[in-house]
Amino acid sequence: MAKVLTDALLASILERVRPLTAQGQVADYIPALACVPAEKLGIAISTVDGQHFQAGDAGERFTIQSISKVLSLVLAMGLYEEHEIWQRVGKDPSGQPFNSLLQLELEKGKPRNPFINAGALVVCDMLQSRLSAPRQRMLEVVRQLAGAPDLHYNTLVARSEFDHSDRNAAIAYLMRSFGNFHNDVIPVLKNYFHYCALEMNCVELARCFLFLANQGRAAHLPDGLISAQHTRQINALMVTSGMYQSSGEFAWRVGMPGKSGVGGGIIAIVPHEMSIAVWSPGLDEAGNSLAGTAALEILAREMGRSIF
Amino acid sequence: MAKVLTDALLASILERVRPLTAQGQVADYIPALACVPAEKLGIAISTVDGQHFQAGDAGERFTIQSISKVLSLVLAMGLYEEHEIWQRVGKDPSGQPFNSLLQLELEKGKPRNPFINAGALVVCDMLQSRLSAPRQRMLEVVRQLAGAPDLHYNTLVARSEFDHSDRNAAIAYLMRSFGNFHNDVIPVLKNYFHYCALEMNCVELARCFLFLANQGRAAHLPDGLISAQHTRQINALMVTSGMYQSSGEFAWRVGMPGKSGVGGGIIAIVPHEMSIAVWSPGLDEAGNSLAGTAALEILAREMGRSIF
Amino acid sequence: MAKVLTDALLASILERVRPLTAQGQVADYIPALACVPAEKLGIAISTVDGQHFQAGDAGERFTIQSISKVLSLVLAMGLYEEHEIWQRVGKDPSGQPFNSLLQLELEKGKPRNPFINAGALVVCDMLQSRLSAPRQRMLEVVRQLAGAPDLHYNTLVARSEFDHSDRNAAIAYLMRSFGNFHNDVIPVLKNYFHYCALEMNCVELARCFLFLANQGRAAHLPDGLISAQHTRQINALMVTSGMYQSSGEFAWRVGMPGKSGVGGGIIAIVPHEMSIAVWSPGLDEAGNSLAGTAALEILAREMGRSIF
Amino acid sequence: MAKVLTDALLASILERVRPLTAQGQVADYIPALACVPAEKLGIAISTVDGQHFQAGDAGERFTIQSISKVLSLVLAMGLYEEHEIWQRVGKDPSGQPFNSLLQLELEKGKPRNPFINAGALVVCDMLQSRLSAPRQRMLEVVRQLAGAPDLHYNTLVARSEFDHSDRNAAIAYLMRSFGNFHNDVIPVLKNYFHYCALEMNCVELARCFLFLANQGRAAHLPDGLISAQHTRQINALMVTSGMYQSSGEFAWRVGMPGKSGVGGGIIAIVPHEMSIAVWSPGLDEAGNSLAGTAALEILAREMGRSIF
Repeated sequence: MAKVLTDALLASILERVRPLTAQGQVADYIPALACVPAEKLGIAISTVDGQHFQAGDAGERFTIQSISKVLSLVLAMGLYEEHEIWQRVGKDPSGQPFNSLLQLELEKGKPRNPFINAGALVVCDMLQSRLSAPRQRMLEVVRQLAGAPDLHYNTLVARSEFDHSDRNAAIAYLMRSFGNFHNDVIPVLKNYFHYCALEMNCVELARCFLFLANQGRAAHLPDGLISAQHTRQINALMVTSGMYQSSGEFAWRVGMPGKSGVGGGIIAIVPHEMSIAVWSPGLDEAGNSLAGTAALEILAREMGRSIF
Repeated sequence: MAKVLTDALLASILERVRPLTAQGQVADYIPALACVPAEKLGIAISTVDGQHFQAGDAGERFTIQSISKVLSLVLAMGLYEEHEIWQRVGKDPSGQPFNSLLQLELEKGKPRNPFINAGALVVCDMLQSRLSAPRQRMLEVVRQLAGAPDLHYNTLVARSEFDHSDRNAAIAYLMRSFGNFHNDVIPVLKNYFHYCALEMNCVELARCFLFLANQGRAAHLPDGLISAQHTRQINALMVTSGMYQSSGEFAWRVGMPGKSGVGGGIIAIVPHEMSIAVWSPGLDEAGNSLAGTAALEILAREMGRSIF
Repeated sequence: MAKVLTDALLASILERVRPLTAQGQVADYIPALACVPAEKLGIAISTVDGQHFQAGDAGERFTIQSISKVLSLVLAMGLYEEHEIWQRVGKDPSGQPFNSLLQLELEKGKPRNPFINAGALVVCDMLQSRLSAPRQRMLEVVRQLAGAPDLHYNTLVARSEFDHSDRNAAIAYLMRSFGNFHNDVIPVLKNYFHYCALEMNCVELARCFLFLANQGRAAHLPDGLISAQHTRQINALMVTSGMYQSSGEFAWRVGMPGKSGVGGGIIAIVPHEMSIAVWSPGLDEAGNSLAGTAALEILAREMGRSIF
Repeated sequence: MAKVLTDALLASILERVRPLTAQGQVADYIPALACVPAEKLGIAISTVDGQHFQAGDAGERFTIQSISKVLSLVLAMGLYEEHEIWQRVGKDPSGQPFNSLLQLELEKGKPRNPFINAGALVVCDMLQSRLSAPRQRMLEVVRQLAGAPDLHYNTLVARSEFDHSDRNAAIAYLMRSFGNFHNDVIPVLKNYFHYCALEMNCVELARCFLFLANQGRAAHLPDGLISAQHTRQINALMVTSGMYQSSGEFAWRVGMPGKSGVGGGIIAIVPHEMSIAVWSPGLDEAGNSLAGTAALEILAREMGRSIF
């Protein structure tokens, strides 16, 4: 029998996964990420009928990292025709670590999907070509979706990521050598790292991504952000490619479209019902939040909310 | 507005995709497959509340080929503990063609998932170890699920596949060299090709796979075939890995768990609602039925039946 | 100043490299190889002007393993036109471990060169097609070249290798799937393992391979074994591909065409001057004799006998 | 019977290979290279006993391109201890195209050898770290070796190469991400392209590289350029890795250490005897001069000058 959603249920789930916060590995490839306390743990839910639930450190902001790849894609889908996007980036799982160059070389600089680094960089290159101030535009959209006018980039983190960006630069230059990257590499990388360094808390993330559970409709955007069709497509992409190379495992265990970031955040969608945001900085080997995934697994089971 | 399901709706969908039957490529790696007429086109649906719909060549049998990989897995899940299965085969998309050896070598003989050839061969090896007559057992189960006591293997096709089995033999021997294949290669290959050469029509396929839409419950099996939990897991696997390397594209377009075979059949599941079987022998580049995929895409859109 | 070649010089070189015999790793993938004492150490030289030198365990036989790949190739060069051979196997370094399937799959079943396992198996497949009793023929030729009528195969080792032949079977089946392997896999594998299990000592090996230093001429074969042109070609192949993936390192250190076997033997050629055989069972990471390579390096330096 | 070396012999060899000049493909990845006339054909030889021979367009300058990789390595060997160099770059054939990233990623940013692009870029990075004006220093050394004080860089070509340097930038950034590239990428790339754009003719090239046939001794450098040991090592490297992925084929056909450039030049060494330079802009699939390789093959055969 599926349980009723309450703040207390969320809190009890957090208690059950809390021991896992000690087992994950906090991302440490830049100092600014390594210093986030591993014991942080939060969850928030927004429903399409307007309810909000939360527990733990749901009000504390962290950098959303790769979760921003969904937002970049949404922005690009508003600026380009479908075929313009999907001739430059694929829709299929990569089967490779998120930052691999192997596949990219074999496949002539076309990334497998927009949620691996190469794909996200192509999407950012597209934003660069059509927006005069892409970084500012991203901020406006996210503030509106999250209902949080004070959201901002953590420029310290953004700069630190840029200082460790050799591999992403290699990826961008490789795509450029195949003609699939049109702007100068450096400014696009800088914007990309700013999107990654956007600071949000679980409550804001759940609100922000509610449109994916609601056929593209967003509270503060009367016309909707994207179409119902595009919403389904993004959810499909998240199921098959949202969790790096363990997307299959995540679908198996949780059964929801999801997208993770190395900051420890995950957003997950129950189409037509709700958006969920969890946060716990300790990561598993694939780079997904260890306790966060476990919390989503319990939630799915107890509420009977798998899409399968 | 979602349309109501009727035989006439199915027939009209077939007419819309019929031009595509001329564009696909009928599998021709063995003569017995190459001679199937490309213009065949059929569809059938079974719903969890007991309705059945069909159109076109839905009553004509064809070899189910890789669709049998789902059935092998279901059998193995009844014979082994979960951990026994998943330590020998993964749950994640491979990102590679279905019969590639590259990944298998790098990953020490553990296939990425049970729906690529390597994974299915490991599952067949498991069946071989625990069943005295695996080929007979498979037939009994499928006859019961499909409610068709006269189902049989096309031994001509099975033998022909075996005569062209060098690559699958290479895959099996490679896994054996890593200790992940326990029985003699030849008899397991022979069984594998028999499962692939099982002949069913769309009506029988839809009935057979209804349990995946019905939490594991099957009409003629009072205790259910597998648990609701296992059912969700298989559906998840089909979404992320069921359509070879274009699983992402299929999720994007159709939005249902599905599994295809090079005979031109596809089964697709709307959890809690229905199972769908389509058949059209012409394949796209990834080896999935071209017209069949298009029919499912239209069906999903017109009935509003994406899982996303 | 180059030193004069004497038994005493060879003995002194062995003493200098003897400590290395304790550092290598004796091949242990089959029991029959694992039990060879690691402290064995021998060397022998035959010169084109008829002198013979030796030191250490030069009279003790061991299985020549991959050194036999040179002999298979020589036999094939006598049975086939040049183009028949080189359209089925390449002449370039593989850059991969000796038994890798990766490259073979990408390059459609054509092995890079005849000294990796895949290439040697193709050559053995060619012998199988043209010789009624290839195993007997190989033995006759080698007995004649070595002047040792009692040479024989260690059938215990051959059988043990066959019992661990899954990876080689995978390689052969993969080439068969590309049409580059024509006979049944099992009998070719059995012959291949017999060639590998040929037992020879350093003195016999040096005599046997003297033809490579002597433009193809062999003492007991008045017409010569192969042409001067073919001799140069084989020496070239040994320099670029004879020592698995550390052929470049070997050329750098020793500067002679060479071929090694996992039994710990190496033959090396100084064109127009001499053939050298060394034996020490402990291997380095690439599978080449550790002390054997070091002995050749010292020999090359002290006698000024690099080809460069 | 080996023929005597004369200008007439060289001229006759050129005539025999001249038809091949129409079959190769002139490098066209930058405009400045694409406009070199395909029918150019020249050869020059310098011997250790002071003779010089030449034929055809031996006096016309062209950009030496990858031949400069040997010179960079020689410079680095004068500035660093052996172990400092070879811990950052390997000595083995890559088995991959000259500009591949695949292997570099798998092998943690350590290039296989100094003659693929990645390896040459690491060597240039080393020069950058130890020389205040590396570009000027290279020019001085080459002018001295070639006895041609007016040698210079074709800055138009160097700039054009830099404008098409995305893939080399990707390679450098990838190595940087592994910690195997220490300086800023852009200035090192610029120097690298200048070395490639050094203009020399066959006569100058043969003189310049005579030290490799002469144990490191050079006419205008009383102390020798490098040691006899280092000379042997470089010749060994050229045999196993000097001709991109067809080094094995080149050793098989020509049997000399050699290094080619996409400008159509090749230098080849007969140790202790002579250095040879050929030029013909049309390239084979691996990027080596088609007619140039054929000329060297004939020369080796007619003079009996293979090292094997």
